[in-house]
Amino acid sequence: MTYCLGLFVESGLVCIADSRTNAGVDNVATFAKLFEFGIPGERWIVIMTSGNLSVTQTVLSLLQEDIDTHAPENLYTLPTMHAIARYIGSKNRQIIEANRQLLAQNQIPAEAQLIMAGQVKGATHAVFLVYAEGNAIQATAETPFMQIGETKYGKTILDRAFRYESDLDSAARAAIISMDATMRSNLSVGPPIDIVAYTTNAFAVSRRRRFPDRDQFLIDFRRTWEQELQDLIARMPLVPWD
Amino acid sequence: MTYCLGLFVESGLVCIADSRTNAGVDNVATFAKLFEFGIPGERWIVIMTSGNLSVTQTVLSLLQEDIDTHAPENLYTLPTMHAIARYIGSKNRQIIEANRQLLAQNQIPAEAQLIMAGQVKGATHAVFLVYAEGNAIQATAETPFMQIGETKYGKTILDRAFRYESDLDSAARAAIISMDATMRSNLSVGPPIDIVAYTTNAFAVSRRRRFPDRDQFLIDFRRTWEQELQDLIARMPLVPWD
Repeated sequence: MTYCLGLFVESGLVCIADSRTNAGVDNVATFAKLFEFGIPGERWIVIMTSGNLSVTQTVLSLLQEDIDTHAPENLYTLPTMHAIARYIGSKNRQIIEANRQLLAQNQIPAEAQLIMAGQVKGATHAVFLVYAEGNAIQATAETPFMQIGETKYGKTILDRAFRYESDLDSAARAAIISMDATMRSNLSVGPPIDIVAYTTNAFAVSRRRRFPDRDQFLIDFRRTWEQELQDLIARMPLVPWD
Repeated sequence: MTYCLGLFVESGLVCIADSRTNAGVDNVATFAKLFEFGIPGERWIVIMTSGNLSVTQTVLSLLQEDIDTHAPENLYTLPTMHAIARYIGSKNRQIIEANRQLLAQNQIPAEAQLIMAGQVKGATHAVFLVYAEGNAIQATAETPFMQIGETKYGKTILDRAFRYESDLDSAARAAIISMDATMRSNLSVGPPIDIVAYTTNAFAVSRRRRFPDRDQFLIDFRRTWEQELQDLIARMPLVPWD
């Protein structure tokens, strides 16, 4: 399984992804699911992937090939985030369609979803969810985050305490809490954890971090969070019995 | 959909259930899913239900009939919670088996799960999850809660901040938070909400409440909880960027 999350706030973007890949509980491996592209000062793009690993790796390879061969349409030439989302969607659909029938013979779903976030100079920053069919939806101020993979455990804290108006530091903390909740409840989501924070109009990222397994910050962070939650519950109003 | 939760703590039990039933988004109704049985001073039992409503209503009717006709084995004669769990399981399996084939003709799954909690004099209090197949598992100090229905959204707060050692008041608050998280993220889980709290060795319940739609306590409780969570996130350690 996978959990990737893209947060959209007024002042920027936060993206976080786990890197555990599994084909059954006895076949677990580590593959990065967060990939950055950019031209410093002009554009910055991050892509996160979930689903069939052979599909997502192939899509990423094609995107890189288009850059390397100076294809007319590539991540560094397309003029808007919308155009980039459609371009990535078409690659995703193409690889899925090419593999669907053969994979289906072995009951393997040729599924892949991506989150794409970033900013191109002259336009606003954005977060998109790109579906297996190639279509895409965009995060808004009302719905300021996109998730792929195992989404339910990590959604609660976002629904309750994350807003488009949140500052970038709190968005990063909310991303860690959401990821940690998912790791705690689903063993097939696991470290290393990649996180990046992008500031609007920076067109480059200086804040990124990879948290390995048993990272001391994450251990302390989780302990503090759980203790604070227990204290908070104890302070909440008593249930008014009849 | 449904969300029912049974919490097992040293000092007692808390059970909470929603009461929304739906067959498609245009066919929504209210049915209680939490049912109490007891002989004051001798035993107290609560049963919560999820799955096919015709199955669970029939199971409840059979349990009541066995009491009314003084069947040798019924909720008021069986000597232990284990025996009651097996008895309820056999009723559940019987009704499911009787209906499975006919329901399958219309692609309707004959599924039902129950949570059964309570205490019989002379034995410890307990929470059981009874499966459609009739088998059951029991909550322990290490795994002190059982959920049925839409379980993921409400599990996070329990994993983080609910313990067997929690007091009954905090267990009741945690139950409300877990239910509210589920209602917020899944529209097919909804009020009225039934909650009861049982104190070990009381063999009766004096603390129960039904929260209707737009209940002012629930509205205020959610607002306080969300504000406190936002404040708590803002106080958490900064993410240590590379």
